[in-house]
Amino acid sequence: MSIREEDLFQVRKLEMSDKSKGFLEILQQLTVCNPFTDEEFDARFQDISSYGEDHVICVIEDKESKKIVATGSVFLEKKFLRNCGKVGHIEDVVVDSSARGLKLGQKVVEFLTNHAKAMGCYKVILDCSVENKGFYEKCGFKQKEIQMAMYFN
Amino acid sequence: MSIREEDLFQVRKLEMSDKSKGFLEILQQLTVCNPFTDEEFDARFQDISSYGEDHVICVIEDKESKKIVATGSVFLEKKFLRNCGKVGHIEDVVVDSSARGLKLGQKVVEFLTNHAKAMGCYKVILDCSVENKGFYEKCGFKQKEIQMAMYFN
Repeated sequence: MSIREEDLFQVRKLEMSDKSKGFLEILQQLTVCNPFTDEEFDARFQDISSYGEDHVICVIEDKESKKIVATGSVFLEKKFLRNCGKVGHIEDVVVDSSARGLKLGQKVVEFLTNHAKAMGCYKVILDCSVENKGFYEKCGFKQKEIQMAMYFN
Repeated sequence: MSIREEDLFQVRKLEMSDKSKGFLEILQQLTVCNPFTDEEFDARFQDISSYGEDHVICVIEDKESKKIVATGSVFLEKKFLRNCGKVGHIEDVVVDSSARGLKLGQKVVEFLTNHAKAMGCYKVILDCSVENKGFYEKCGFKQKEIQMAMYFN
């Protein structure tokens, strides 16, 4: 029995067992990500889990290949301004190069955006390259400001 | 006995008692910030304090007027990429309109940047308007990406 496409690519939260399903390899398509040991993965997983709904990492697992083919994260920042408002920060959205064109990126962004909204955020923001601006506009975002960065050695 | 200027404007962490020292009024110079009740302030203060060193709000109090004249915040995001790295996110930097020209903004940004570095972040990032780009360049930042936003009603 084959799996229907809508069931094949469902977004869910990251699980401990995803470290053996290609989660690292997906992140490596985004930026520098040296292999981590099981202990390092577990420790960071626990770190992030301790924030509960305030820091959520989601993945899409290809139910046939059992591989992670997309991921993204959102964390909630609690402010005093905007009536003690909350802001969702989306980070590290990436889709496996073999799974482009299936709108998995949009599914991930929608999942993260819906989470921020459900948790009471007044807005959700993210930083992206100029090349990815069109993608995020299709997801309902608008360009706002510029991002500045300082790297430590 | 007058206070020396270097002692007059020192950066320190936000304290509960700052709510009666003009902390709200400073935030209102940045964006929408309706007055909060003591209970709302206290609850949000406790929320943020529960993150310990992972979410720090700093202020500069004018030791003579006993008023808050600058503030800014930084929170640490824990990632899997960059070898389970951490990123500092700077938010809500503002200096009182009556205290411009004293380099208090730079003091605040330096305090937040140093905190992120001391906590092991590999970089610190922030979003700002194009008009504030020059200020952050003087603080050692470089323009990197663009910020996208989605507002909820």
